[in-house]
Amino acid sequence: MSTSLISTPFSLPTKTHLQSQQSQAISTLKPAISLSNFTPKPLSLSSRKLPPLSAMAIEKETPENEAPPTFLKDPSTSSDSVRGRFEKMIRDAQDKVCEAIEAADGGGKFKEDVWSRPGGGGGISRVLQDGVVWEKAGVNVSVVYGVMPPDAYRAAKADGGSHKPGPIPFFAAGISSVMHPKNPFAPTVHFNYRYFETDAPKDVPGAPRQWWFGGGTDLTPAYIFEEDVKHFHQVQKDACDKFDPSFYPRFKKWCDDYFYIKHRGERRGLGGIFFDDLNDYDQEMLLSFATECANSVIPAYLPIIEKRKDTPFTDKNKEWQQLRRGRYVEFNLVYDRGTTFGLKTGGRIESILVSLPLTARWEYDHVSHFIAPCDPYYEALSQKKAVKSGNCWMLASIQKSGYDREFVTIPL
Amino acid sequence: MSTSLISTPFSLPTKTHLQSQQSQAISTLKPAISLSNFTPKPLSLSSRKLPPLSAMAIEKETPENEAPPTFLKDPSTSSDSVRGRFEKMIRDAQDKVCEAIEAADGGGKFKEDVWSRPGGGGGISRVLQDGVVWEKAGVNVSVVYGVMPPDAYRAAKADGGSHKPGPIPFFAAGISSVMHPKNPFAPTVHFNYRYFETDAPKDVPGAPRQWWFGGGTDLTPAYIFEEDVKHFHQVQKDACDKFDPSFYPRFKKWCDDYFYIKHRGERRGLGGIFFDDLNDYDQEMLLSFATECANSVIPAYLPIIEKRKDTPFTDKNKEWQQLRRGRYVEFNLVYDRGTTFGLKTGGRIESILVSLPLTARWEYDHVSHFIAPCDPYYEALSQKKAVKSGNCWMLASIQKSGYDREFVTIPL
Repeated sequence: MSTSLISTPFSLPTKTHLQSQQSQAISTLKPAISLSNFTPKPLSLSSRKLPPLSAMAIEKETPENEAPPTFLKDPSTSSDSVRGRFEKMIRDAQDKVCEAIEAADGGGKFKEDVWSRPGGGGGISRVLQDGVVWEKAGVNVSVVYGVMPPDAYRAAKADGGSHKPGPIPFFAAGISSVMHPKNPFAPTVHFNYRYFETDAPKDVPGAPRQWWFGGGTDLTPAYIFEEDVKHFHQVQKDACDKFDPSFYPRFKKWCDDYFYIKHRGERRGLGGIFFDDLNDYDQEMLLSFATECANSVIPAYLPIIEKRKDTPFTDKNKEWQQLRRGRYVEFNLVYDRGTTFGLKTGGRIESILVSLPLTARWEYDHVSHFIAPCDPYYEALSQKKAVKSGNCWMLASIQKSGYDREFVTIPL
Repeated sequence: MSTSLISTPFSLPTKTHLQSQQSQAISTLKPAISLSNFTPKPLSLSSRKLPPLSAMAIEKETPENEAPPTFLKDPSTSSDSVRGRFEKMIRDAQDKVCEAIEAADGGGKFKEDVWSRPGGGGGISRVLQDGVVWEKAGVNVSVVYGVMPPDAYRAAKADGGSHKPGPIPFFAAGISSVMHPKNPFAPTVHFNYRYFETDAPKDVPGAPRQWWFGGGTDLTPAYIFEEDVKHFHQVQKDACDKFDPSFYPRFKKWCDDYFYIKHRGERRGLGGIFFDDLNDYDQEMLLSFATECANSVIPAYLPIIEKRKDTPFTDKNKEWQQLRRGRYVEFNLVYDRGTTFGLKTGGRIESILVSLPLTARWEYDHVSHFIAPCDPYYEALSQKKAVKSGNCWMLASIQKSGYDREFVTIPL
């Protein structure tokens, strides 16, 4: 099967540059990303009777036995470029994260799948499944060469202008990861860092090459331990503060706004940082910033895992974790731009959906049985203010702490 | 929580009448369905900071202690109308199906939630959870009063015309059900029957009232037993053949096309019937047809359950069932019009998502470990032709049988 699988494990173009409205951005982009050696997704013998895949599709990938030193088309001239250095950074980050996770797991091993695309680019998926600590941990990197439509490029250009260029080739590279532990008290983490760059248009002498950075790191616990969440946010804040004091508050809020399950009126988790379309700073500085963020994942996450991975738990705790996993699935399949974009464009399905938990649960009307209006977990996610009632913990003031919300441990 | 929940457990307007392209139809309809007593979905104290819900939203429902005899606004004049008789039909069908399922389960009981909307209409959700045979079975009915935009109405009118009417009030009623059994050899069933009607425009004397029927019944097993699938399809065929010989082949194909998980290149299940926008037949005939279809669910489904519910199974069988449940989740959250429309418009979430299984599973790259290219289950879903290899069963000719595909039992 793997020969017919294709992949974009990260969301490619972003709303600010390409379209003001998120859902529109994705559908508008459908015809945009067409690669030079375009191959429609292989369907079955009877495929002509089936609804066609989106007109926009990503080039079919070829499995490789071994990861090449680089997925760049022109490695000799590109290794010092930002794209070359970004690829090296995400490859290094993948190595370091996988090594740290394997060591912390103490049993599970990452399985690696490598692929390339005939027109250039490729990816490495590493997945640890059914480990001692994690039930599923995926760390993917990929490099994509594509073509974006002139309108999107003009929207991205600061100076606008009346010249109408042809389709613009682009380069994108990213690392993307989700790790779901087994213990209900040990949180899920997600991180994703990506760099996007267009070629300088050949028909417009002196026209600039466009580029931007995006990414983020966020935590999704099933149970809230205030110290864990504060530690996690503090590491993000420290990484941000090394570069710009405005970064942390802006990117923290962006994260809260992005990971929002509209139909539930809930956030997916307890936040972290998220940014996109970032190009209004020095490029070198932003490369260093993305590197710092990627390097902060393990110090932000592993101390929490060490503390919680062996906490005794009951069937009820596991059930609650599974219900929260259901919310994770809902967010990723309904709202997440990277996932929905990947599914619609025929990306490598197994890489895209590695973000889904191993198992999840949906009970009818569960909320009314287990989550009282005063439940601090519910409060933290919905940002509703609660009052104390019965045995429930009160969440006195959600906006009081420096982290926008207060977190309390739910008694077992 | 239930006071803030709202609902449309079925997909309202349909592509033929409102838009030619399915995904477009939903987004185009966002501003369309605005009810007279429109209330934005209640959000939290901090909701102003969050992304707003879609501009189109469904009126907030009020929980009721008891199901009223009818949800019609004008019961005295409507009981003989098609809308009145359709509501009676789905209410009766809900009673009969729930009674039969409870009896077959031999332990689980349906829990009922009733709600109404201030502007008229309402619904009844009945859910049996953690029964003896079924882990989750939901049977919902609802009645919705809304307003559709003039453009949609003109598109629906056979005679077109240049007159520009105002917004058109509509009525919709439907029954919707998904039942997931515990035993991996017992299949999931889904059915849904709905009736949609506009008011006759008051400003155009003699202008017709528009109406149409939609619905279907389909089966999703984790393991294929040819006799089960043939029985299921035969009951659908018999119901269709009483009305029009073209119905079964058309609606069977429509079902196969609709329940298609594009990103997997797989069908959700093994089909049944599906139709929509049906109004080019006598209205009385179609009401009888929808009634016949709804009454055929139990005879199509229960004999299969009786045969499979006590089949011994292993952990591996359960795991495979859970993986197929994951596919069910993928289809419903990514593609199903009723679900995605309901989520986007703020329908009653618990009713909409009752279609999701109690539990589901996603393993990285599972396909390559368990499903060989010659696996008959995989073949049946993907309509790929296979050859015999090793211990796998061959699926000689997918299009050979009268049911378009051949089904074989997978050896355990």
